[in-house]
Amino acid sequence: MVDGEMRPLVDATVSVVGLGLMGGSLAGSLRGRCRTVIGVDRDRRVTDAALEQGFVDQVSPILEEAAATSDIIILATPVRTILRLLGEIGPWLRSGALVMDLGSTKAEILAAMEALPAHVQPLGGHPMCGKEISGIGAADVGLFRGRTFILSPLSRTSTGALRLGEELVRAVGATPLVIDGERQDYLVGTLSHLPYLLACALVSTADATTSSDPLAWQIVAGGFRDTSRVAGSDVTMMVDILTTNREEVVRAARRCEAQLGRLIRLVEEGDEVQLRETLAYLRETRKEMFP
Amino acid sequence: MVDGEMRPLVDATVSVVGLGLMGGSLAGSLRGRCRTVIGVDRDRRVTDAALEQGFVDQVSPILEEAAATSDIIILATPVRTILRLLGEIGPWLRSGALVMDLGSTKAEILAAMEALPAHVQPLGGHPMCGKEISGIGAADVGLFRGRTFILSPLSRTSTGALRLGEELVRAVGATPLVIDGERQDYLVGTLSHLPYLLACALVSTADATTSSDPLAWQIVAGGFRDTSRVAGSDVTMMVDILTTNREEVVRAARRCEAQLGRLIRLVEEGDEVQLRETLAYLRETRKEMFP
Repeated sequence: MVDGEMRPLVDATVSVVGLGLMGGSLAGSLRGRCRTVIGVDRDRRVTDAALEQGFVDQVSPILEEAAATSDIIILATPVRTILRLLGEIGPWLRSGALVMDLGSTKAEILAAMEALPAHVQPLGGHPMCGKEISGIGAADVGLFRGRTFILSPLSRTSTGALRLGEELVRAVGATPLVIDGERQDYLVGTLSHLPYLLACALVSTADATTSSDPLAWQIVAGGFRDTSRVAGSDVTMMVDILTTNREEVVRAARRCEAQLGRLIRLVEEGDEVQLRETLAYLRETRKEMFP
Repeated sequence: MVDGEMRPLVDATVSVVGLGLMGGSLAGSLRGRCRTVIGVDRDRRVTDAALEQGFVDQVSPILEEAAATSDIIILATPVRTILRLLGEIGPWLRSGALVMDLGSTKAEILAAMEALPAHVQPLGGHPMCGKEISGIGAADVGLFRGRTFILSPLSRTSTGALRLGEELVRAVGATPLVIDGERQDYLVGTLSHLPYLLACALVSTADATTSSDPLAWQIVAGGFRDTSRVAGSDVTMMVDILTTNREEVVRAARRCEAQLGRLIRLVEEGDEVQLRETLAYLRETRKEMFP
């Protein structure tokens, strides 16, 4: 192929590295839309399950081997495993290979991608979906359908590589959205990582108080269930996210702490006009967020 | 009838006062399971809609008239309207009538019920369900199905009245759970009202920061949507709830503020062992809450 030209998705061999919820779902959604999907995971039970569920054409426990035969390599592990793999994978990659990831935070990943050999094409990726259950057993080929899939190119990323990334995103039913890494980390700090901390704080509060009442879990309703849902997220994934987006997460959470404090004071002081006005504004604001 | 004996539900005329989400749904679920359902609402458009949707057998804009012919009166308005109505309704009630409510907070309601004439039977009620949309248009006869419906009897409430309340709860597909008012207010302060404040704090934080980025709402995912859902709750309902359960709500929210602060510090300080342990514990705790 001409230098810089990428093999079209339909002819590409794609390795998905890490067959958990995200990787398994992506592999399954890509299968049949490219030449071959190789599932890479060290855990034999996981690769067996991926084969059994028809998510992959082939499996391999060895990234080096899979990388050597792949046009596209997608790292779908927790963020800090992505960082480690990016440090190792360089020598194994084919010239012109597209290297993507599915990590929720981008600053450190894009820095590690920057250090990849010049003959490969790096592209950050972050699909805006998830579940509070993890693992290949939770994988679902419909997971990406209708969702936004952030793509964060580096300055070294070619237009052809970005186009191929967009083609891949559309192939799994998602909508590509190009955002630079810094901006994406800022946005997801508030829109994705902060909700996780709030859900955890809620579960923690209930655990410390009402959980001792045997009736508590008979009366818990949809509000608590929904507000706490993401506290069930995979812990390794979340520790990696919070650690690699620490600054933005802490900033967003401190802001939210202040907002919560303000709301508590409104309730406490009984300034009803102000309370009603504030809550009405927030109700409208949320409506605009989800019309 | 013998004194203290209640007319069975199937023979009862039931007035539902306030045909919003909760009242409309309850009326619709009761219709056909009692002699007559009367929908009481001052708003003609609301009573018209209730008739049109088949939620009620009759409607009346005048509580005094409806109360005079009813065996069961269920107050399904915001809490402070319930309090006002309880102060007015006494003289209009039939001897032996069962007076219930659907309010989320119980302390003030049960105190107002205590003051009802001795010849009527008061019973606090709180169905553990809701939606972030309100009004008769959101009413749904399946709303109570499979849900817990708290009943809080007063010491003056007869066993027969409590049994009739339980029969009514089962008739709409819910499971009755008898809890005294103080304990229910404590539990829902953490399990229901606190999630609302957290959802509001989250929306407020996003509004103050990321909302100015036009891409924010393209990337917002299920986590934010679920964690913020109850911020869309009806404002009048919530102001009444927060105001009449102020002490418990503030206490629960202050506890949660402290838990959030603890989590933020764990992220900030980078004590990863402690962070992982805490998040893993909370994940397990939530799993136990919703097995």
